[in-house]
Amino acid sequence: MELTTTPEPPYYAVIFTSVLSPDDEGYHEAAERMFELVRAAPGFLGVDSARGEDRVGVTVSYFRDEVAIAGWREEPEHAATREKGRARWYDAFEVRVARVERAYGSR
Amino acid sequence: MELTTTPEPPYYAVIFTSVLSPDDEGYHEAAERMFELVRAAPGFLGVDSARGEDRVGVTVSYFRDEVAIAGWREEPEHAATREKGRARWYDAFEVRVARVERAYGSR
Repeated sequence: MELTTTPEPPYYAVIFTSVLSPDDEGYHEAAERMFELVRAAPGFLGVDSARGEDRVGVTVSYFRDEVAIAGWREEPEHAATREKGRARWYDAFEVRVARVERAYGSR
Repeated sequence: MELTTTPEPPYYAVIFTSVLSPDDEGYHEAAERMFELVRAAPGFLGVDSARGEDRVGVTVSYFRDEVAIAGWREEPEHAATREKGRARWYDAFEVRVARVERAYGSR
């Protein structure tokens, strides 16, 4: 697995943290489909995601701007899956929308 | 494991993504110590972290403002451990500093 690459800031990050329910039937297929779908979303820049053995997951999706975030939020298949996920798969979740101001790294 | 709670935005997020090297001797102890240390840092608000079986990790630390981020960056034990980590434990990493503008969730 590799880290995503993003252009120079500024851009936006959607930070999604969640606790996956033990009753997660159908979750992994749906998550894979969402990763596939978001890659085609206008203004999508990249995504980094991890989930540990304690079932806590942190997924950060990067978008060009707020317009791109709104477009992805309203994408019909994503919206339907999101509602299902919130009702069924997550014991808890948080969404934070943030403007990336600077970035650096090494690879 | 639980998700952290944070106050109403605005505040800042430091998004740290990494690929842990297979040669990770000493890493887990150092990481635990850094989690302990950051909780005492002025302006620290919370942290969410996950690492999956593919060795990709996503850690998001929340701070009150840029002053708090700078204070944590310059904390001597953290600075020493960070340099060691970058040289030894990570095959790749990225740091993004972002201003959280809105947040919502369910728990």
